[in-house]
Amino acid sequence: MNTPTHDSAFAPLQNDSFIRACLRQATDHTPVWLMRQAGRYLPEYRATRSKAGSFMGLATNTDFATEVTLQPLERYRLDAAILFSDILTVPDAMGLGLSFALGEGPKFARAVRDEAAVAKLAIPDMAKLRYVFDAVTSIRKALGGRVPLIGFSGSPWTLACYMVEGAGSDDYRLVKTMLYSRPDLLHRILQVNADAVALYLNTQIEAGAQAVMVFDSWGGVLADEAFQEFSLAYTARVLGQLKKEHQGARIPSIVFTKGGGPWLQEMGELDCDVLGLDWTVNLARARALVGQHKALQGNLDPNALFAPPPAIQTQVSKVLKGFGTPHRGDGTGPTHIFNLGHGISQYTPPENVACLVEAVHELSRKMRA
Amino acid sequence: MNTPTHDSAFAPLQNDSFIRACLRQATDHTPVWLMRQAGRYLPEYRATRSKAGSFMGLATNTDFATEVTLQPLERYRLDAAILFSDILTVPDAMGLGLSFALGEGPKFARAVRDEAAVAKLAIPDMAKLRYVFDAVTSIRKALGGRVPLIGFSGSPWTLACYMVEGAGSDDYRLVKTMLYSRPDLLHRILQVNADAVALYLNTQIEAGAQAVMVFDSWGGVLADEAFQEFSLAYTARVLGQLKKEHQGARIPSIVFTKGGGPWLQEMGELDCDVLGLDWTVNLARARALVGQHKALQGNLDPNALFAPPPAIQTQVSKVLKGFGTPHRGDGTGPTHIFNLGHGISQYTPPENVACLVEAVHELSRKMRA
Repeated sequence: MNTPTHDSAFAPLQNDSFIRACLRQATDHTPVWLMRQAGRYLPEYRATRSKAGSFMGLATNTDFATEVTLQPLERYRLDAAILFSDILTVPDAMGLGLSFALGEGPKFARAVRDEAAVAKLAIPDMAKLRYVFDAVTSIRKALGGRVPLIGFSGSPWTLACYMVEGAGSDDYRLVKTMLYSRPDLLHRILQVNADAVALYLNTQIEAGAQAVMVFDSWGGVLADEAFQEFSLAYTARVLGQLKKEHQGARIPSIVFTKGGGPWLQEMGELDCDVLGLDWTVNLARARALVGQHKALQGNLDPNALFAPPPAIQTQVSKVLKGFGTPHRGDGTGPTHIFNLGHGISQYTPPENVACLVEAVHELSRKMRA
Repeated sequence: MNTPTHDSAFAPLQNDSFIRACLRQATDHTPVWLMRQAGRYLPEYRATRSKAGSFMGLATNTDFATEVTLQPLERYRLDAAILFSDILTVPDAMGLGLSFALGEGPKFARAVRDEAAVAKLAIPDMAKLRYVFDAVTSIRKALGGRVPLIGFSGSPWTLACYMVEGAGSDDYRLVKTMLYSRPDLLHRILQVNADAVALYLNTQIEAGAQAVMVFDSWGGVLADEAFQEFSLAYTARVLGQLKKEHQGARIPSIVFTKGGGPWLQEMGELDCDVLGLDWTVNLARARALVGQHKALQGNLDPNALFAPPPAIQTQVSKVLKGFGTPHRGDGTGPTHIFNLGHGISQYTPPENVACLVEAVHELSRKMRA
């Protein structure tokens, strides 16, 4: 396919605090965005989704995807936008048949469980993911430079979990049975996934994504050693192929492993700019373990958003202070990007998100004063 | 109630390797037992359960509970038995109405969600848990000293999760809403739970339990700081009240927090003998963080039991070597108790468990040679 074309003169970035913090540069406040910020907790999202008919109907329609991506930015002074899409678009493009039954998680029509199914896997034609790249370009244009746009994908291991299980799982029995019984098959899946994810993210960058994030949602279910071999190594394989610059701009990369706390030291050696952390992680300890060469993103418990505003402010303050003294801003020390430790809950009262965003901005400005 | 009576002359312990390892004393092999070793993966368990009619029918009948506790010991050379019961017996005795719908997890008829419900909570009359203590005494007699018997309870926080949610949960939204909005209510629940759990475990010890374990199954869902305040502090409150000796024998205590990897240092300061670890934890790192004053228990991924025997042996060897050189056995260094990192899966092929137990014994003997 042709590289998605776009007007190379996108509007200049007005609020670059997120990109600066990713690159460990000074900002006057701690930038904040929220995983799954465009989502079901917003009534306007539910309205658009109901027009679209289904989740994939929403994700594959450029106008709808643009509309929902921008919805939280209309309400809140967030410092970044994130592409509205799903982490499983790549295996869908491999021909596995992704669907979302109402009220349930993702399902694949064709799970990958035996030698024959694994042999058939290949890096998908990016033309099948054109709807994603079109959405990226459309959103970037619609943003008009207000804040940067983050592109993303599931990690090779997380994609493999769904591809082998055929759906979400409580125990990951099928994919782990493969891991312990036929590691050769799983390695082959992960190689294809890693190269496909790298191509996918690079094409998002060409289409206009200004940062990219790898969601290793299920890395934390692996045993020590298995995590390093089957998740981390393939995340590293993705990172090794990523464009670090596009049209003169640095493109920061973020890796988020839910439950990755036990492996912060190893993750500190990844060739990415930012590590995302879940709420179990002590930010000061993470800062010490990861070292000076990464920004950290996170890590408020999404359930803190069910508390009344004064309690939310207290929790925001704990996270900011947990990270500690704001960076010196000379690119040598770590910086902090505020986020939740996982996606926002669909039951979150929207007004509490406003309280969160304002608290991050206000308190982090005070900490710099 | 009267303290459960038992013949104070229980048969002397023949295989004391588990107790010795708990107390950091030398053993000629690494002792092994498995969380949920009496369970659905065994056809003989399913047969007894079907006679009993329901899970609680099984747990509340002394003969059935004794029968299923001993079943895995007939098949495998396990080094300890664990009482067959449920982690939620204490809140059931508080009057919350525990039930297990077929194919689903536990449910409480009366969840504890408001000030009035919290105010009503009290340490239950131990007479309501007589079926547990009777089972302990019966099992201890039936064991005839072959291996020691472990008693157990859910941790105060884990009990609170179920009491507030009313059932299992994906996101712990209700209990965490209470945590962030009304920490005073949650603290009151946890105080009652801690004192009830301590009394419950002490009564199990009087009835014949030779070691006790606190299952903090849901500690790992808490944010850093919240874990310390709402889980660890109340586990410590339980430990502070536990009998450390009974009729001249030391009664070791074990604390297992699923997902507790981020807090190994803090857990190392608990006043217990053994820390249970899940499979995400690197045993060598845990040994370094926890220090010399605890034995470590764990931590094979239960899904490794779906692999063929040679792969199981490889994984067993990795865990044993991960822990490192066996202790010197002078009570000053850490010792290792082999276990899974969580309960055994109901889908486990029973013959693979035999392979696991034999591999632990054989390989750990070789490591000492």
